[in-house]
Amino acid sequence: MAALKVFNSEKLRLCIRSVRCGVTGPGYMIGIRRDFSGKAKAIVFETNGKPLDVLKLHTFPLPKITDDTVLVKFLASPINPADINQVEGVYPTKPPFLSDAISSSTPLAIGGNEGAVEILEVGNSVTQFKAGDRAIMRHTLFGTWRTHAIAKVSDLTRVPYTSSEVTAVQAATASVNPTTAYKMLKDFVDVKEGDWFIQNAANSGVGRAAIQFGHLWGLKSINVVRDREDIDDLKRDLESLGATKVVTEDEIKDKGFRNTIKEWIDGRQIKLGLNCTGGESTTNLARQLSPGGHLVTYGGMARKPVTVPVSLFIFKDIHLHGYWLTRWADAHPEEKEQIVNEIFGLSSAGKLKDVPVDEVVWTDNMSDQDRLDAFKRGVERYINGSGGRKQVLVHK
Amino acid sequence: MAALKVFNSEKLRLCIRSVRCGVTGPGYMIGIRRDFSGKAKAIVFETNGKPLDVLKLHTFPLPKITDDTVLVKFLASPINPADINQVEGVYPTKPPFLSDAISSSTPLAIGGNEGAVEILEVGNSVTQFKAGDRAIMRHTLFGTWRTHAIAKVSDLTRVPYTSSEVTAVQAATASVNPTTAYKMLKDFVDVKEGDWFIQNAANSGVGRAAIQFGHLWGLKSINVVRDREDIDDLKRDLESLGATKVVTEDEIKDKGFRNTIKEWIDGRQIKLGLNCTGGESTTNLARQLSPGGHLVTYGGMARKPVTVPVSLFIFKDIHLHGYWLTRWADAHPEEKEQIVNEIFGLSSAGKLKDVPVDEVVWTDNMSDQDRLDAFKRGVERYINGSGGRKQVLVHK
Repeated sequence: MAALKVFNSEKLRLCIRSVRCGVTGPGYMIGIRRDFSGKAKAIVFETNGKPLDVLKLHTFPLPKITDDTVLVKFLASPINPADINQVEGVYPTKPPFLSDAISSSTPLAIGGNEGAVEILEVGNSVTQFKAGDRAIMRHTLFGTWRTHAIAKVSDLTRVPYTSSEVTAVQAATASVNPTTAYKMLKDFVDVKEGDWFIQNAANSGVGRAAIQFGHLWGLKSINVVRDREDIDDLKRDLESLGATKVVTEDEIKDKGFRNTIKEWIDGRQIKLGLNCTGGESTTNLARQLSPGGHLVTYGGMARKPVTVPVSLFIFKDIHLHGYWLTRWADAHPEEKEQIVNEIFGLSSAGKLKDVPVDEVVWTDNMSDQDRLDAFKRGVERYINGSGGRKQVLVHK
Repeated sequence: MAALKVFNSEKLRLCIRSVRCGVTGPGYMIGIRRDFSGKAKAIVFETNGKPLDVLKLHTFPLPKITDDTVLVKFLASPINPADINQVEGVYPTKPPFLSDAISSSTPLAIGGNEGAVEILEVGNSVTQFKAGDRAIMRHTLFGTWRTHAIAKVSDLTRVPYTSSEVTAVQAATASVNPTTAYKMLKDFVDVKEGDWFIQNAANSGVGRAAIQFGHLWGLKSINVVRDREDIDDLKRDLESLGATKVVTEDEIKDKGFRNTIKEWIDGRQIKLGLNCTGGESTTNLARQLSPGGHLVTYGGMARKPVTVPVSLFIFKDIHLHGYWLTRWADAHPEEKEQIVNEIFGLSSAGKLKDVPVDEVVWTDNMSDQDRLDAFKRGVERYINGSGGRKQVLVHK
């Protein structure tokens, strides 16, 4: 299947070059048309607001490919929390509002930051990619909730694996959540094999990645999740990824539970905590840290501030930090590329399992209304939690 | 005056040596008796609880001086927050409860950690001190709310200044508050001349010391205090110590005030915040920090936790730490001695002004009840805030 895809793409590339050279043939042209009608469709917003209120579908002709750009077809684009916050207008980075560029009389912003694409056509001077190659977005703010785009080479990071080695969804979800988990486990504390870390929202994309990296690197983990009906299934699920212990928020807030944790860690230290929530859960996390421990906040799911008793700072010497992947990624694109490639390698070797996904499926012949409705259902599932499943727009 | 004191003490030392050698003289003996009756009086507690309920006065004979100990007379001992917390039983370090050693049938703890003493008599093998020397406590938990004690040489740090250069109160209050301020300004951020720091409780002992060190080291400071009737007087007072700006909690919690601060700092950064409160004041402090700034908590006056929005961690890269002087001092007694000596030097040069003090005066011929009542009045003033004035037990 992968070989066939490459073959087809290679044919397509030949075709495109041929067209430019004035050598046309009906078979090749059909190849292009099958992949791209000349118009792109995107999920956009004209004003910030509640996503279900403000998101719209917009169809627009793409500009012509130039010597140094490429035409890409989107394969998969997740709906990440930052994307939703950008729609709401509460995120510090904001996508550009475009009008002429997307043939709209009113300025519109295209949602989405992360995504995997297939190169359909490359400009004459482009040597880094060929048709059929796959890539992910190198930077945020591209606007990835769409079908097609003209991109600069510098917008893209190659995926050096076939689609049977690294799926489109794996590629589309590698650069944010797993990379965040990777960096937080490495950057704040000099953790050594056998050390413990603790995290809440352990069922999230970052949480699952942290469990697996920890397991691969010899770290032990205490994973806090909200109680739920199928808690035993979830515990087994996370344990199968390599979680050492899985506990509920209710369990960990009980003061007596500290003795249980003390027994678990058996004289070792909990030097690092990863916090995705804010509120009470964060307080409970901070209390479990060993003296001198570090708590890193990377999300605010509970929409409540981080609240930590004064005594933990003074007498337990706890340190609090934040982590924002975008800041680091913008400053260190090469290092990010290295880590993403390492993640692709782990995915292809089966050592990094996919986050559970709900697919928002777009097919070529769907109506605009159906595309929008399907996308909004995905957003609705995101808002409702969806049992920790990531919503991903997938083009079939 | 100082010269006379040294002279007298020297005589006293000769006297004591003479006594041991069997050479006595009435004048010298009167000298000893004037300083010490053989019995010590101390503020003690039998159980933890509210200080006004549990503090008692206890009189007990001191053990005889041995070859390697010294007899000291207390000159001044502050009532610090940690002391009160120890009485309440809510502090992580706890003074020992003694019975035989202080001739009590029920175990009693002597309160107070910081203090300045005069050496009255030294054991035969003691070379580091002579009678008339002054010293402060080298460690915490000595129990300094008392008149006299037998101390080991290792319990004491010499005050290498005369009483006219460094007063007893200055000596007695140098090792906790100014040292805390000194370390917090130096240890967390590489602040450079012209950089700003911000602090709440700027009228506290630590706050006043931080203002002065900042001023001496070329740092600018924004100093937050609670609003009060005499706010203009307080502003002038702190400005006279070197405060660049003094603002009230009400002013700083107004979002519009950020523009004022922006104008003040004029493109420079606020890299460091010093937090003595917890609660809303801390949140306001954290909001003023420049991206990448560090907030150090050293007190919890508001008895509320530290609460900081998630976004400040993730998007502003704020870091939170705690500072507990005792941890550092116990691990680095030599460094502490160096810093305390530097502080003495600054005090003697008039570069570090005294914190405002309310004296709890004990005189030689006071009744036990009067001593206890006077001390409790000091505790009461401490509890009521006393306009930021430090309560210090002074022996006259």
